[in-house]
Amino acid sequence: MEDTQGRKLPFASDYMEGAHPALMQALVRTNMDSCAGYGLDEHSEAARTLIREACHAPAADVFFLAGGTQANACVIDCVLRPWQGVMAAESGHVSTHEAGAIEHGGHKVIVLSHHEGKVSASSVEACVVSWESDENHDHMVQPGMLYVSQPTEFGTLYSLSELEDLSRVCHAHDVALYVDGARLAYALASDKNDVTLVDLARLADAFYIGGTKCGCLLGEAVVFPRHNYVPHFFGMVKQHGALLAKGRLVGVQFRELFRDGLYERIGRGAVVAADQIRAACRELGYGLALDSPTNQVFVALDTTQLAALSQLVDMSFWEKMPDGRTVVRLATSWATREDDVDALIQALRSCR
Amino acid sequence: MEDTQGRKLPFASDYMEGAHPALMQALVRTNMDSCAGYGLDEHSEAARTLIREACHAPAADVFFLAGGTQANACVIDCVLRPWQGVMAAESGHVSTHEAGAIEHGGHKVIVLSHHEGKVSASSVEACVVSWESDENHDHMVQPGMLYVSQPTEFGTLYSLSELEDLSRVCHAHDVALYVDGARLAYALASDKNDVTLVDLARLADAFYIGGTKCGCLLGEAVVFPRHNYVPHFFGMVKQHGALLAKGRLVGVQFRELFRDGLYERIGRGAVVAADQIRAACRELGYGLALDSPTNQVFVALDTTQLAALSQLVDMSFWEKMPDGRTVVRLATSWATREDDVDALIQALRSCR
Amino acid sequence: MEDTQGRKLPFASDYMEGAHPALMQALVRTNMDSCAGYGLDEHSEAARTLIREACHAPAADVFFLAGGTQANACVIDCVLRPWQGVMAAESGHVSTHEAGAIEHGGHKVIVLSHHEGKVSASSVEACVVSWESDENHDHMVQPGMLYVSQPTEFGTLYSLSELEDLSRVCHAHDVALYVDGARLAYALASDKNDVTLVDLARLADAFYIGGTKCGCLLGEAVVFPRHNYVPHFFGMVKQHGALLAKGRLVGVQFRELFRDGLYERIGRGAVVAADQIRAACRELGYGLALDSPTNQVFVALDTTQLAALSQLVDMSFWEKMPDGRTVVRLATSWATREDDVDALIQALRSCR
Amino acid sequence: MEDTQGRKLPFASDYMEGAHPALMQALVRTNMDSCAGYGLDEHSEAARTLIREACHAPAADVFFLAGGTQANACVIDCVLRPWQGVMAAESGHVSTHEAGAIEHGGHKVIVLSHHEGKVSASSVEACVVSWESDENHDHMVQPGMLYVSQPTEFGTLYSLSELEDLSRVCHAHDVALYVDGARLAYALASDKNDVTLVDLARLADAFYIGGTKCGCLLGEAVVFPRHNYVPHFFGMVKQHGALLAKGRLVGVQFRELFRDGLYERIGRGAVVAADQIRAACRELGYGLALDSPTNQVFVALDTTQLAALSQLVDMSFWEKMPDGRTVVRLATSWATREDDVDALIQALRSCR
Repeated sequence: MEDTQGRKLPFASDYMEGAHPALMQALVRTNMDSCAGYGLDEHSEAARTLIREACHAPAADVFFLAGGTQANACVIDCVLRPWQGVMAAESGHVSTHEAGAIEHGGHKVIVLSHHEGKVSASSVEACVVSWESDENHDHMVQPGMLYVSQPTEFGTLYSLSELEDLSRVCHAHDVALYVDGARLAYALASDKNDVTLVDLARLADAFYIGGTKCGCLLGEAVVFPRHNYVPHFFGMVKQHGALLAKGRLVGVQFRELFRDGLYERIGRGAVVAADQIRAACRELGYGLALDSPTNQVFVALDTTQLAALSQLVDMSFWEKMPDGRTVVRLATSWATREDDVDALIQALRSCR
Repeated sequence: MEDTQGRKLPFASDYMEGAHPALMQALVRTNMDSCAGYGLDEHSEAARTLIREACHAPAADVFFLAGGTQANACVIDCVLRPWQGVMAAESGHVSTHEAGAIEHGGHKVIVLSHHEGKVSASSVEACVVSWESDENHDHMVQPGMLYVSQPTEFGTLYSLSELEDLSRVCHAHDVALYVDGARLAYALASDKNDVTLVDLARLADAFYIGGTKCGCLLGEAVVFPRHNYVPHFFGMVKQHGALLAKGRLVGVQFRELFRDGLYERIGRGAVVAADQIRAACRELGYGLALDSPTNQVFVALDTTQLAALSQLVDMSFWEKMPDGRTVVRLATSWATREDDVDALIQALRSCR
Repeated sequence: MEDTQGRKLPFASDYMEGAHPALMQALVRTNMDSCAGYGLDEHSEAARTLIREACHAPAADVFFLAGGTQANACVIDCVLRPWQGVMAAESGHVSTHEAGAIEHGGHKVIVLSHHEGKVSASSVEACVVSWESDENHDHMVQPGMLYVSQPTEFGTLYSLSELEDLSRVCHAHDVALYVDGARLAYALASDKNDVTLVDLARLADAFYIGGTKCGCLLGEAVVFPRHNYVPHFFGMVKQHGALLAKGRLVGVQFRELFRDGLYERIGRGAVVAADQIRAACRELGYGLALDSPTNQVFVALDTTQLAALSQLVDMSFWEKMPDGRTVVRLATSWATREDDVDALIQALRSCR
Repeated sequence: MEDTQGRKLPFASDYMEGAHPALMQALVRTNMDSCAGYGLDEHSEAARTLIREACHAPAADVFFLAGGTQANACVIDCVLRPWQGVMAAESGHVSTHEAGAIEHGGHKVIVLSHHEGKVSASSVEACVVSWESDENHDHMVQPGMLYVSQPTEFGTLYSLSELEDLSRVCHAHDVALYVDGARLAYALASDKNDVTLVDLARLADAFYIGGTKCGCLLGEAVVFPRHNYVPHFFGMVKQHGALLAKGRLVGVQFRELFRDGLYERIGRGAVVAADQIRAACRELGYGLALDSPTNQVFVALDTTQLAALSQLVDMSFWEKMPDGRTVVRLATSWATREDDVDALIQALRSCR
């Protein structure tokens, strides 16, 4: 893989490389430490303390899980009661790309309409009030939680004001607010972002700080800002097959990510690169399907452009547009190299 | 952790350290490779090929999962049909220490009596025949699979002859045979073992080659010797929240474990060390609760011995005996150091 | 209840009375027969034979269940494999009014748009093709079944041609077609209907002939036209808590319903009554929310009309219209009395 | 069935006939009443009031379900939290004959040893304490409920003193006590019984008063002595497919059973008949497998006796004894006729 001859430019996703070098070094350094299992080790405990500090949430419960679908399935299944379902944007990861993991746990995903991946407080309220006011609602699934992702699957961001509205509506109706932060580092690194970790811990009942897509080999940090918000979560994680024997593996990485603020810096390069790609697209006359301010770039290509660019660049098919064009996604990450960005812009230029 | 002053001797379990150095080096070496996700990368593919070769099972389907409970839950849930349950020793990991993961998936664990962790072909046959011959068996859970572990939770081994008997009985009654190999490397390294990977692939319908306890940071290789034995397993792994985005993480490690036979050597030091500890116990007059030939040593201690040894050694409580003594488990692993074994024997001597 | 003074006119639903007198008499007549349990009795067996004959499906498997949600949950859970979901109109009973029973069984309800409760073959095909052609479809729930209701929740009917199209699309893509016939007698009794029981058995993989809303005390007859289409269904019904110990209770009633064609006559009076109510509404200038040809009448009322009519008639709230009017549902049934229809029309006249 | 020539004597079970004549008359009398659905009708409400009075439990929540497995599955699934399982005798109905319904709901049945179908307070306590004191108990299923049946599956009875002990142990450890009263009328009618409905309501957290085997066409009355002990039970019953549209069907029958104490009388004839059969067996030298004081008689037959008696009597196979004899069960019920008891005793005499 060292040979770059014939190699396609790697913009297919943000989980193509291993771990950020600093995390890898920490893993190597601690490799032969003899640690307690199941996340009860000193590294995990230190990481939890650092995360509580970063969130200004001293009583928070923090658990380390292996991946995003697993985190979503565990949190949603454990927060909801059996008669409840989770509201989510039709485009939400739990609605579309988790192979029915939420329903496998027994819960309906109640689909809300969305704009560029975001749901509005008014549509959430309408959904909840509709259930509350229906005299037959015992025959219907109760909306017990709202799932949002920050950034969304379209790379867009909820503003602080929007998130406060969502939180207000949820809590006025005893609905839990859960934020999927699979790509949270890329939100925190965006110029357009005004939502901090402290805000998340203040406004949400549960959220996870994404590691897999943000520099870790694997791992997500699930945060419940209030202690014991979900009783027996540890045992239920085990029951879901999601408890890592060597929990230290994720603990060591998050300890490194939060030791001196790396998590809030780690996505910066990716966002700068994505901004450069977006600027180049605009300049070159490519259509941007939407103007997301994080690490994902959505470009509309005609058939010729698609064929040509596919020869040079690894990228993801996103969707077919009514006008026949194809939207592709170019994802940058903490691992994106500047020369690859330059080469990509060159490729875009050559495919005009 | 480099300082050994005041440090207890690490015999609590076989998953206290990180990865075997060779595996760690492979992870570092490949860290910045840009790989496809979800185990579709070249490392995972190469590892699958090597495992098929080691098992003489060219058509086998091989999947990499994160941990043992997850592997058990996915395999059992996906092989069984909804009206079926899985037979297992009362002491089997799925019966006792998976927090109800099998039942969470909707299946009964049908408990069989055992001797030192092992079930007999005759008790399996009796269970199946009892169901088959009951005229009301539509009201009862059908035994659809047999779960055994090799080595067992007591460190004992099925002989080839015993495993052939189990396989014969299972297949005569259309019951799937599944072998949990969480500690398989320690079976393969035992002088008493006569069951090879090739035998497992020939006799079982599914098994997993344990990584987490056998040198990996994490990971188990689930093997279905016959292609497409479980349709849609990939999607069901995703549905169980068990699909690793960076599947390469486990693939790289198993590629290294099977590149030149490391897996079959990696447990040897642990078994030698355990043999030394067992010999010392016998010589020193400690009771061995059972004479397991792998990496776990079960010693019966009186109250004074227990108190004294607990000051010096990290070990696991196993069970209380009727005569008041306590059985503790001392586990060795690929990471066990010879000087720690010597120090442990010294400690045993001092606590007589 | 014999006194009709002050009594509201009973049009709230079609399950307000007990059993059709002929069925009640059959229950009384056979009450002290000593019968085998669990539907293995002679009455149930005779009923199954009669249903097979009525459907021209001599190899059909027929099971008697207690209610509609139970039938839907059992059939869908048993036909689908774990990675599959069921497509249904957004207005379908399984989508909205079964308290999440389908998701409780682990399956997603994949929502399709509808017109007056009906889905089109083209929207079904688009949904299936979208899944088939998505390269990441292992991460998505596979549409494994189409659920439709005949008549629909809006009282509308699929024509034979429409049902043939749905069947063709489903079977071209290996999707099961399931028809919920909770109110099937009212479809069969409609002048507008051209779909027979024989057609259903020819076009669907599973359907149920509704009893609870069509003259029975309780009970639905689930029909799988092909023998052994769902292996172990009997045991899975038991597992769902849906196996009646005294299965004869439903068997006796369906035997009577199919002894000499009562089922195909039993809804006729209800449809005639509903037609009279619809004609009166039109004549009196009430808006019909839609022009359903079966036993449900959907009338749009302004606030004054709603208040006045609610004093006189038991009816169901259906939905609020954008213009402020309220749609109510008036349901007739096999038990509807002609004098109550006359009184209802009188009431409608008085509330203009 | 009116012809008794060649008819076998009906002792196979206690659910072979329809409803007790008084209940059937009530169903006929109320058949054309127009009632609210889902158990919200006046008959069901009146029945609930009568049951509360009979139990001296004015705040009790009472729900009517269709059958025993359904009641067990709903109650256990709704009382337990996901990380909990239910303790039950190895011979308990939920352990053996419900086709895995409890595990289908996600919960382990934790098996306890038993004597003639009964579990002891000490074995319950040992099970709970074992979990509480295990330092790894987060990896194990928590015993959250005790299931017992009164009478047991062997027809034996818990004494009041035994039930008080069980209740004390359960509540000392925050474990719910649930009593399955499928055949409760036959316990209440036994001379040996000293446990009343009032005791059950005082000692148990949930129980059901069996109807299906005690005179009803179908139906069980689930009683939670404390109001709102299980939140949203109504909706969860719907989700389990267990909510009867015409709930009045069960309500009318229980109203009749509890109007003037019929439920406490209805099993008397069955117990007297069973006592006569037991006395005859003893006199004739048949072995009684156990001396149950309710409506089930367990007789040990040698091969010749079994063959001869099977020609004359419908009875149930129970189990094979080590000495080669077969235990059969003869069940009486409210519907057992005195002349059939005489004929059975005659048959027993002739088969000596």
